[in-house]
Amino acid sequence: MVAQALDELIAALPDGMVVTDPAITEGYRQDRAVDPAAGKPLAVVRPRRTEEVQAVLRWASRHGVPVVPRGAGTGLSGGATALDDGIVLSTEKMRDITVDPVTRTAVCQPGLLNAEVKQAVAEHGLWYPPDPSSFEICSIGGNIATNAGGLCCVKYGVTTDYVLGLQVVLADGTAVRLGGPRLKDVAGLSLTKLFVGSEGTLGVVTEVTLRLLPAQHTSSVVVATFDSVRAAADAVLGVTSRIRPAMLEFMDAAAINAVEDHFRMGLDREAAAMVLGGSDERGRAGAEDAELMAAVFTEHGAKEVFSTDDPDESEAFVAARRFCIPAVEATGSLLLEDVGVPLPALAELITGIERIAADRDLTISVIAHAGDGNTHPLIVYDPADAAMTQRAELAFGEIMELAVALGGTITGEHGVGRLKRPWLAGQIGPDALALNQRIKAALDPAGILNPGAAF
Amino acid sequence: MVAQALDELIAALPDGMVVTDPAITEGYRQDRAVDPAAGKPLAVVRPRRTEEVQAVLRWASRHGVPVVPRGAGTGLSGGATALDDGIVLSTEKMRDITVDPVTRTAVCQPGLLNAEVKQAVAEHGLWYPPDPSSFEICSIGGNIATNAGGLCCVKYGVTTDYVLGLQVVLADGTAVRLGGPRLKDVAGLSLTKLFVGSEGTLGVVTEVTLRLLPAQHTSSVVVATFDSVRAAADAVLGVTSRIRPAMLEFMDAAAINAVEDHFRMGLDREAAAMVLGGSDERGRAGAEDAELMAAVFTEHGAKEVFSTDDPDESEAFVAARRFCIPAVEATGSLLLEDVGVPLPALAELITGIERIAADRDLTISVIAHAGDGNTHPLIVYDPADAAMTQRAELAFGEIMELAVALGGTITGEHGVGRLKRPWLAGQIGPDALALNQRIKAALDPAGILNPGAAF
Repeated sequence: MVAQALDELIAALPDGMVVTDPAITEGYRQDRAVDPAAGKPLAVVRPRRTEEVQAVLRWASRHGVPVVPRGAGTGLSGGATALDDGIVLSTEKMRDITVDPVTRTAVCQPGLLNAEVKQAVAEHGLWYPPDPSSFEICSIGGNIATNAGGLCCVKYGVTTDYVLGLQVVLADGTAVRLGGPRLKDVAGLSLTKLFVGSEGTLGVVTEVTLRLLPAQHTSSVVVATFDSVRAAADAVLGVTSRIRPAMLEFMDAAAINAVEDHFRMGLDREAAAMVLGGSDERGRAGAEDAELMAAVFTEHGAKEVFSTDDPDESEAFVAARRFCIPAVEATGSLLLEDVGVPLPALAELITGIERIAADRDLTISVIAHAGDGNTHPLIVYDPADAAMTQRAELAFGEIMELAVALGGTITGEHGVGRLKRPWLAGQIGPDALALNQRIKAALDPAGILNPGAAF
Repeated sequence: MVAQALDELIAALPDGMVVTDPAITEGYRQDRAVDPAAGKPLAVVRPRRTEEVQAVLRWASRHGVPVVPRGAGTGLSGGATALDDGIVLSTEKMRDITVDPVTRTAVCQPGLLNAEVKQAVAEHGLWYPPDPSSFEICSIGGNIATNAGGLCCVKYGVTTDYVLGLQVVLADGTAVRLGGPRLKDVAGLSLTKLFVGSEGTLGVVTEVTLRLLPAQHTSSVVVATFDSVRAAADAVLGVTSRIRPAMLEFMDAAAINAVEDHFRMGLDREAAAMVLGGSDERGRAGAEDAELMAAVFTEHGAKEVFSTDDPDESEAFVAARRFCIPAVEATGSLLLEDVGVPLPALAELITGIERIAADRDLTISVIAHAGDGNTHPLIVYDPADAAMTQRAELAFGEIMELAVALGGTITGEHGVGRLKRPWLAGQIGPDALALNQRIKAALDPAGILNPGAAF
């Protein structure tokens, strides 16, 4: 029966668009969360056009086949984990973009990488701000699915703030246009915003209209090291309560050392924490911000403070921060967390994670988009060591429970996916969860879109 | 039966909270759209607490009584028009606010006026940006219901960009918390954003967590007059394609003259259009922006260009622009439009409205938040003149149809309400409309929340 149904799909789409060769489909079973529960999909479909996505979903609806939408496969929560007897719908070949400098918008398909969008708009002197650390390898469609964040979000907001319009294909194959190139538009419910962050559970995005900004001004960067995590976290609050930095990042000792192992930048290996602040205010205002940040860091007992407005030197520090995850990953396998708290609880979150690490006899390196309270604890473990793996998994849950207890979130920017689903109700509560499910049921009554993900 | 049911509601709430005195309820039948089809409500309920809103909605659900949520009653689309045998639920007495300068957030109830929120946060050196022209008389709850905009939105975005969390009471009386004081949080669907702009059709907002910014820097303002609407619109594009102004407003000849009648500011009564640009960049950058705007205006053939960085003088121009609607209203009754287009179509929209005014033998004054393509055509008519009233109503529809034909929206910031509902499907199409209705049905299956409004 299933084989027959699949023949129907193959016949409905251009030659080669439906891939069943296991040597290829194997690479689409997991995203970077490497979910061990990933299934074996019937096929991977790689459409180029909205009409083809419609054909896939009409077919899937008719046969009750689950569809897992997939961007570049860089997700960290298992939001693109393949299912047995399901389809993986990869948007990787949907790569058109047109940029309109007059309206400062771009219309693009979901398969472009974030970096490719940045590059295409930069050619018109424009800037697409959201900058996940993975921006060179993650797709804009995946960014929309998770409402991705990044480093500049502390000043410039997250993906949803730049999405003016979408074309989405619903579970039944209907293609709907939502919003468009209008900076203000309140006609009907804010459905564009509902689809951003919906992790492929409500529809498949086939086109997005992005809002762009004029090119970013060069940044002044201030780097400071601290003897304690608490002093660093307090310094972060000292900055955010006075100015609006364009970047405010945190690295703990393990991250500093892992980065120093790779880059030999002369970072202080003895420091407990490092904070990187940036300002992109124009002219003298950027220098004023940098001076203020340096003064705040010193006030909070910084061991060393270093400021630069040299673009290459600034970029080197930002690159070092972006490289934290691969650098720590070189020391072992990672369970990658993404918890966030209201800013005043940041120190308590980080010190609480240190306690969990000690209790579970694990290394947990904490890096953070500190200015918006979003941390990435990196739990290092050896998958060959069953006991350690189990301790890592326990710590993974305990960190989320700690964040929720501090008024925080189990995921700031990576999404719930499959890995964090058991903790969602603990954060948002049964009534909000029921509300999520009512909307899901209204839009995808048969539950074929990414079943088991998010909620 | 109805009287008995009402007794039950009166008994369930504190004394005096349910008002049935027609002398009072009369004032709650209409908002500023003065919808002639407004009904006579059974009662007006003015709760102070979330629990009381829950009691009202539980009661209304049990008895199938429609509930029209109402903020300050300043809506311009009939979103708060009362219904026969319904309840008006006014949030005017829900007026608590607490400001947290460390997280730069405020938690407040919906009944506070926008200006009161601005004032309360300003005491902590903070700024709540969204600034509808009615900011002194409209409520924050109403702003959330319509996703209100204003003058500074061209740079700072609209209400939804500042809403981090909500408490909402659903049709069945369940109170749900969505989001919270976290700058990044992607756990579950973006329900907070779905409720912003839902015009009271999905639930009643009883508390909001607002994101705040540091106090705005003082603005440099540049004012220019033009011989033609097209030159003025082209000048607007000349600015937005180069910089990001904090304000970019447009007034046509009728608006200039109406304002001049009141303020005697020495505005050029012969000009076809006036453009006001503002920059709040810090230090020298603000002056640079002002110089650039002045140069762009001159390039586009401005008759006169005037720049100032004096705060009082700047504020006088902004106040004049804000006063346009009352000033034009002094010349006759108004049908107030709120259409928007992608920026390149701005000139075509305004000249098209001139054509409609000539064809229908009406005065239609156009003012606009030009930088984001959002215009407010003001159709002047005499309600005592039946033929003129009918021509005004025809023009009202024709303007929306023109905006949609130009790729625009029937409402940029006022909402669809009851007055614009017949035109919604023409803009968003049947599939998007059906999607709105599926979500409405999922959240309010009996349809008791603001039935007939929005969609």
